Amino acid sequence: MKRIGILTGGGDAPGLNAVIRAAVKTALNEYDCEVFGIKNGYDGFLEEDGIIPLGLDTVRGILPRGGTILGAVNRGNPYTRTLIRNGKEETVNVADEVLAGVQRLGLDALLVLGGDGTLSSAHEFYKRGIPVIGVPKTIDNDIGGTEITFGFDTALNIATEALDRLHTTAESHRRVMVLELMGRDAGFITLNAGVSGGADVILIPEIPFSFESIVKKIRSRNEKGASFNLIAVSEGAKPRDGAQVYSRAGDEAFVPRLGGIGQLVAEYVEGQGYESRVTVLGHVQRGGTPTAFDRWLATRYGAAAVRLAARGGFDRMVALQKGEITDIPIADAIKEPKRVNVNSDAVITARNIGISFGDE
Amino acid sequence: MKRIGILTGGGDAPGLNAVIRAAVKTALNEYDCEVFGIKNGYDGFLEEDGIIPLGLDTVRGILPRGGTILGAVNRGNPYTRTLIRNGKEETVNVADEVLAGVQRLGLDALLVLGGDGTLSSAHEFYKRGIPVIGVPKTIDNDIGGTEITFGFDTALNIATEALDRLHTTAESHRRVMVLELMGRDAGFITLNAGVSGGADVILIPEIPFSFESIVKKIRSRNEKGASFNLIAVSEGAKPRDGAQVYSRAGDEAFVPRLGGIGQLVAEYVEGQGYESRVTVLGHVQRGGTPTAFDRWLATRYGAAAVRLAARGGFDRMVALQKGEITDIPIADAIKEPKRVNVNSDAVITARNIGISFGDE
Amino acid sequence: MKRIGILTGGGDAPGLNAVIRAAVKTALNEYDCEVFGIKNGYDGFLEEDGIIPLGLDTVRGILPRGGTILGAVNRGNPYTRTLIRNGKEETVNVADEVLAGVQRLGLDALLVLGGDGTLSSAHEFYKRGIPVIGVPKTIDNDIGGTEITFGFDTALNIATEALDRLHTTAESHRRVMVLELMGRDAGFITLNAGVSGGADVILIPEIPFSFESIVKKIRSRNEKGASFNLIAVSEGAKPRDGAQVYSRAGDEAFVPRLGGIGQLVAEYVEGQGYESRVTVLGHVQRGGTPTAFDRWLATRYGAAAVRLAARGGFDRMVALQKGEITDIPIADAIKEPKRVNVNSDAVITARNIGISFGDE
Amino acid sequence: MKRIGILTGGGDAPGLNAVIRAAVKTALNEYDCEVFGIKNGYDGFLEEDGIIPLGLDTVRGILPRGGTILGAVNRGNPYTRTLIRNGKEETVNVADEVLAGVQRLGLDALLVLGGDGTLSSAHEFYKRGIPVIGVPKTIDNDIGGTEITFGFDTALNIATEALDRLHTTAESHRRVMVLELMGRDAGFITLNAGVSGGADVILIPEIPFSFESIVKKIRSRNEKGASFNLIAVSEGAKPRDGAQVYSRAGDEAFVPRLGGIGQLVAEYVEGQGYESRVTVLGHVQRGGTPTAFDRWLATRYGAAAVRLAARGGFDRMVALQKGEITDIPIADAIKEPKRVNVNSDAVITARNIGISFGDE
Repeated sequence: MKRIGILTGGGDAPGLNAVIRAAVKTALNEYDCEVFGIKNGYDGFLEEDGIIPLGLDTVRGILPRGGTILGAVNRGNPYTRTLIRNGKEETVNVADEVLAGVQRLGLDALLVLGGDGTLSSAHEFYKRGIPVIGVPKTIDNDIGGTEITFGFDTALNIATEALDRLHTTAESHRRVMVLELMGRDAGFITLNAGVSGGADVILIPEIPFSFESIVKKIRSRNEKGASFNLIAVSEGAKPRDGAQVYSRAGDEAFVPRLGGIGQLVAEYVEGQGYESRVTVLGHVQRGGTPTAFDRWLATRYGAAAVRLAARGGFDRMVALQKGEITDIPIADAIKEPKRVNVNSDAVITARNIGISFGDE
Repeated sequence: MKRIGILTGGGDAPGLNAVIRAAVKTALNEYDCEVFGIKNGYDGFLEEDGIIPLGLDTVRGILPRGGTILGAVNRGNPYTRTLIRNGKEETVNVADEVLAGVQRLGLDALLVLGGDGTLSSAHEFYKRGIPVIGVPKTIDNDIGGTEITFGFDTALNIATEALDRLHTTAESHRRVMVLELMGRDAGFITLNAGVSGGADVILIPEIPFSFESIVKKIRSRNEKGASFNLIAVSEGAKPRDGAQVYSRAGDEAFVPRLGGIGQLVAEYVEGQGYESRVTVLGHVQRGGTPTAFDRWLATRYGAAAVRLAARGGFDRMVALQKGEITDIPIADAIKEPKRVNVNSDAVITARNIGISFGDE
Repeated sequence: MKRIGILTGGGDAPGLNAVIRAAVKTALNEYDCEVFGIKNGYDGFLEEDGIIPLGLDTVRGILPRGGTILGAVNRGNPYTRTLIRNGKEETVNVADEVLAGVQRLGLDALLVLGGDGTLSSAHEFYKRGIPVIGVPKTIDNDIGGTEITFGFDTALNIATEALDRLHTTAESHRRVMVLELMGRDAGFITLNAGVSGGADVILIPEIPFSFESIVKKIRSRNEKGASFNLIAVSEGAKPRDGAQVYSRAGDEAFVPRLGGIGQLVAEYVEGQGYESRVTVLGHVQRGGTPTAFDRWLATRYGAAAVRLAARGGFDRMVALQKGEITDIPIADAIKEPKRVNVNSDAVITARNIGISFGDE
Repeated sequence: MKRIGILTGGGDAPGLNAVIRAAVKTALNEYDCEVFGIKNGYDGFLEEDGIIPLGLDTVRGILPRGGTILGAVNRGNPYTRTLIRNGKEETVNVADEVLAGVQRLGLDALLVLGGDGTLSSAHEFYKRGIPVIGVPKTIDNDIGGTEITFGFDTALNIATEALDRLHTTAESHRRVMVLELMGRDAGFITLNAGVSGGADVILIPEIPFSFESIVKKIRSRNEKGASFNLIAVSEGAKPRDGAQVYSRAGDEAFVPRLGGIGQLVAEYVEGQGYESRVTVLGHVQRGGTPTAFDRWLATRYGAAAVRLAARGGFDRMVALQKGEITDIPIADAIKEPKRVNVNSDAVITARNIGISFGDE
């Protein structure tokens, strides 16, 4: 193994730089192997100056930093791209360009750090002869075959701290506080942070909720003497089929107003007579310095990916299982995204301690 | 001085519990004076069980906690209140009730922790014979006569950390990140956090902005090679008179959609071709454990308020001037709210280092 | 199941209160079962006022708090205790007292939160007829049969943040910074935090080190242009047999001076001509608010322990395996303490990225 | 003003990079003035490659980073230096070298970021014709003429968080926790953090203490039902003249053992029968990301220093007074170091709330 490439695709996840750093150090220290960084996902193969050598100097000091020194893009179609070449617009096949780039650079392996989408295209590119190695990346923790992914723990801590802060305000001022968190399809962030931050109601994509059920919970808590309520809601949480949403006036149909589901929940609850406030954390959850765990996991992934490349384990992805790093076929990881198991001990525990999922 | 009362009014501010703790300890240790807590602002005087004794046990462990152990309310009219007494609705004069309560309890002083509104009513109540002592409370730092108030520093650190996190994501993904912060009338939080968090554009109530100017700044930065932009905007920031806001389609009038000014800015910017994301921190800024500075200031305020009461300095407010605790007439504090001085070294510095206020 | 007891033994671990809260809520909500808190480990059974009822009010707000509301003790011999009763000194058999207490209160189960020592005595007490349920507690992560314990993640984040801070100072001032961390017998905290915090040298109990090797590493890094070095050392790290330690003067035998191994390493390194500073984090690692992960795990343990009690699973301990809560015989957990596997992917990764364990 | 130089001297202080960044941006944006960074204090003038151009690229992203991109040294004698030149050892006069460097580069001003020592030499160098501008730098907050310096607030927050964490452990385990903090001559960090972190005893250089007094305080608290004690001690705290220190055995003279004053206090207290633990935070207090306040203050200092240079205000230092940036003669700043005023409201407040300074 003389030369490897590395790229990051999709959204941000704290720990990307830790993966890059560990991969570069392992390649240099253990295999005397050169490393090239491909900038902006696969786009680096299509752009001038899109590929840079990565040495010890390049990765010095990046361990605690969020983001990715390679940049990343989140594009619709990963297979074709329209660009301007030699003055005219051209639609190119990305796989062709990547293959050409890999051959031109003489890369023995291409480490691809990405989520479902990026890994799926990596798997396709492998069929075209590109020696891909996958590293799972998602703050949503929704990639199959691995117990946990880096970035998730950081997101959880940020969300939990926000709940802690909302808690004291809610408690002192008798309010319903709504916190909208990331998670379009998977509710892991909201479930875990909700439990860790002492939420009373948790709304996640995997468990459709009714607005009435939320208010029932608030009313029941207030009757028992509680004077505040915390609601953690995934951006992808969905009202049950046929769930009726009434306006404040009560007698006319409620028109969902702009803003996410968090805003909607807060407005409904306020319409029922409970003063409400909403916070939308947004990309604050994806950025900044990774937690100790995320750096630890990311570092192990980065070094393991290089060792996997040295063994020729192409079309495979590094994964965490039972606390140990292993590797699995990329195909296994992407065949079914991970979702919150509504019968898991975690969900049962949440119900045991009195948390409502809005489905009662 | 045998007995004093203490109450907290208005919105949350990290440090309220530290004030209460210091006041209780000082009263007991130095003056052998009993302390009573009035719950839910002045309402405690109107409610059964609205007044509780405060001893060392009550204040143990509350120093690092956000919120207020006394509860707080944020009501419209502080002078009259409608309530149910002896089975029938009655409108009462709050000053009468407070005076009656103060006399019934035999309070030698009433410590009032509050913002503009609460302090204004305290000043009126003093004229009715109530021995009030003021303690300034506002996370917006907009009370006159004192250099700084507790809660402000905590809000700044939360907002700055959010900017740090948005920064890495913006940088890696070439986006415009918009962070909406508290500050309906005063831009201190946004100005300070914007400078501390490396914002490129800062929009505050004191400096009306134009949407065009924001985009001009983004364009100029991008031309110089920057690939991301951070915008910090006060909830009370206002577009200049006559500022035109166009829709994405470009040819029809832009209809401001629901959501705060942060959402509006993000939509405008995205409409001009720059991918944008918005975060609304909301009440996360007001809650949770206070910073070291806020605990320090709050503790000094609490002890100084009791010493001021012992000296009979009624109708006065403790204040910080030149780093020392002093006291001033409440009337001076409320006569003119504090605003960002647009000619201060702070604003000049912000402009010096290239920050746009959207007014160029 | 009508009544259960709960106690915490041994050193502090962030998350204890989260376990207690979840257990109380689950017992009340799901089993309509009363809960009693035994104060100060088993000692609560021997003391007047040593047992308190735990209701929803008692556990409100304790989720984010470090420590344990039940108190804890760390005593030498858990089987006998000498105390004053009816005016005279008496040596009592703890198991007798616990059994008597359990019968007197009519406890159907006794939840024991503890480390190796406390769990071992719990196992013995079970043989005497006490219906014990174990919950593993150790910030060192050295209990067998469970992948991870609460408190560990919090300790890691504190240690990693300390390394981050030392890093910038070391870098700017060309120093060797030594950080002594907890871990008398197991090096998990130091290994993980060392990797996450970018340490150059990691010294753990499982890998005996030589002082010469540390200096060799420093010299080699300096030759490559690095101007600083970070050393993370477990309090239980041990020099290799026969490792020679020379004094600063160079020609006389080094007399190990007072202070822990961190101090010793710093002095040796300074004696070799490299300016050094030492930080001893001590109990800062054990206290304060738990991380999101620790609250999450602790909550799941607490609820699962009650469910296990309801199923009659005595003499068993809740455990985390493959990310799911399960339970195992206490005997299995205590038969062999967990240690860092020096051939694990984690240690291999650390070496891959250039970290020295002082054994080269 | 065409060219300015900037250097950082002495120990680390979070915010140095923020000063450098603001100075570079202000110089470029407002004065179209080149900036040169002198590496490693004045040493950059003596070394090859000791001077680097500072542009917008150099300062990008450094705002949140601790340390200094220029490096710093803490040397004994700032006026002469022995070095190897042209193969032979030579003792040079630093002022001559700095003057030569300033003339060679054509610097119109030299911004010197430093503490007492560095500012004193800057004042001397000015007499030799070097156009120095001072920026105060000390985490101890002990420079005269300015209300506060950057780095101090960061140190306070780190120390306060450590006290928070020790608090929960002390509370649960009935211990005396000792935290040794920075402050060789000035007790500001320990006083402020001690109050903010709820310490029971605060020992600072300005108030000599007796060991007996500490134990008296512990005993008194325990008699009132408290079961733990927190002691915050400055590294420079000094026992009173004639204070007697007895060994554990009680009858032989206590031999102060190695380790700082924190260790000594812990050992004495333990010798009196109270289980004790010590934490030495060390350089953790000086490093890492600055708080919002420190970034804010540092940014204002950096921009103001450049504006001061443009006005020709040499031999002067930027300072914070009444919340505004101003400037004063360096001579005024260095003539008397700042110390804790033992009659200030801060110390009075600490005593009011029951804190002992060990001098009763």
